[in-house]
Amino acid sequence: MRARHKPWADDYLKENVSIVELNPTENKGKWKQIFTNDNPIHLEIGSGKGQFVSGMAKQFPSINFIGMELVKSIIVSTIDKVKEVGCKNVRLVNENAEKVTEFFEEDEVDTIYLNFSDPWPKNRHEKRRLTYHTFLEQYQTILKKGGKLVLKTDNQQLFEYSLVSFSQFGCTLEEVSLDLHALNDPTNIKTEYEEKFAAKGQQIYRCVCRFD
Amino acid sequence: MRARHKPWADDYLKENVSIVELNPTENKGKWKQIFTNDNPIHLEIGSGKGQFVSGMAKQFPSINFIGMELVKSIIVSTIDKVKEVGCKNVRLVNENAEKVTEFFEEDEVDTIYLNFSDPWPKNRHEKRRLTYHTFLEQYQTILKKGGKLVLKTDNQQLFEYSLVSFSQFGCTLEEVSLDLHALNDPTNIKTEYEEKFAAKGQQIYRCVCRFD
Repeated sequence: MRARHKPWADDYLKENVSIVELNPTENKGKWKQIFTNDNPIHLEIGSGKGQFVSGMAKQFPSINFIGMELVKSIIVSTIDKVKEVGCKNVRLVNENAEKVTEFFEEDEVDTIYLNFSDPWPKNRHEKRRLTYHTFLEQYQTILKKGGKLVLKTDNQQLFEYSLVSFSQFGCTLEEVSLDLHALNDPTNIKTEYEEKFAAKGQQIYRCVCRFD
Repeated sequence: MRARHKPWADDYLKENVSIVELNPTENKGKWKQIFTNDNPIHLEIGSGKGQFVSGMAKQFPSINFIGMELVKSIIVSTIDKVKEVGCKNVRLVNENAEKVTEFFEEDEVDTIYLNFSDPWPKNRHEKRRLTYHTFLEQYQTILKKGGKLVLKTDNQQLFEYSLVSFSQFGCTLEEVSLDLHALNDPTNIKTEYEEKFAAKGQQIYRCVCRFD
């Protein structure tokens, strides 16, 4: 996602340390202390402008949500959304997916969300897809036994690729939906992108897989 | 598939014993003798009017194909198609899927095809779907280790259901295509139904899964 450069973004992150974790490596293994409770931890990798993570936090107050987003000028929007919903069960990390094992201890996470991740359609970019097996290895490390990964995308090729990748890695598919919005699931929190895309009547794919 | 009653069908099957196996239980473990060669055996369950099985037989002369179809008045069309292509590598069995282990020995089959199987959309009919786990158990018995199942359907719900069912059974997905015809795969032999359906521009789903 491209975003206008926001020179004030750095300062804004520092002003909001109750929401943004500036040194997430220090939180490894300690997220329950950060949230001061024993609730499950759900992680969105690539949380974008934050509509999903803030919406989920509001809908599920007994779950702790962490949004991870590399682009500073985008994550600032999430800070505003989290303030708006007024939830205490969200933290943000301004980092990328490759470092998840630096921020989370083994078995520390219950569920991972990948929403509308970059499809990297060219074969030579396969390794960058967030469902490539090297990423799945990292997810397996930080997820509890039986932990879930929930993938949503509008990209047919990424979805096809991911189903095969999950299966070959040894994950078990628990749910596959080839037209998520046709289900009218009221608990489905839409991302900004999803909302725009669905308004055009286009299909959204979702799958849930389990790591054992 | 409904078909007009053909009172002559019984006799027609008996007249074509070089193509139709009238006592398939006697062939159990002996299919290579029937075909008089060591070529791999591919089985289509629900072969309908036979465009797929005869087309495949023509395209892959080094594979032995068996088409299984319960409806007598439909299987007679396959006899004509097999005669038309003039292939010696096809046999037909006028039986249903529930009996596959009566007709095939353990590890006797290399690949199973399910083409446009009845989706049985109601939950209470789940057990009748040809990708329900009791069927998968039977397929696993007759398939070689590493044998494949190839599923094609236009039915979204059946496809979603089957992907989950395969995964939960322990199969590994090797390929998932959510729009098979967009690939323009010249080796894809279309069934009669598939041809009609695709002409309307509707999506065809395909997956390949491996039984280990």
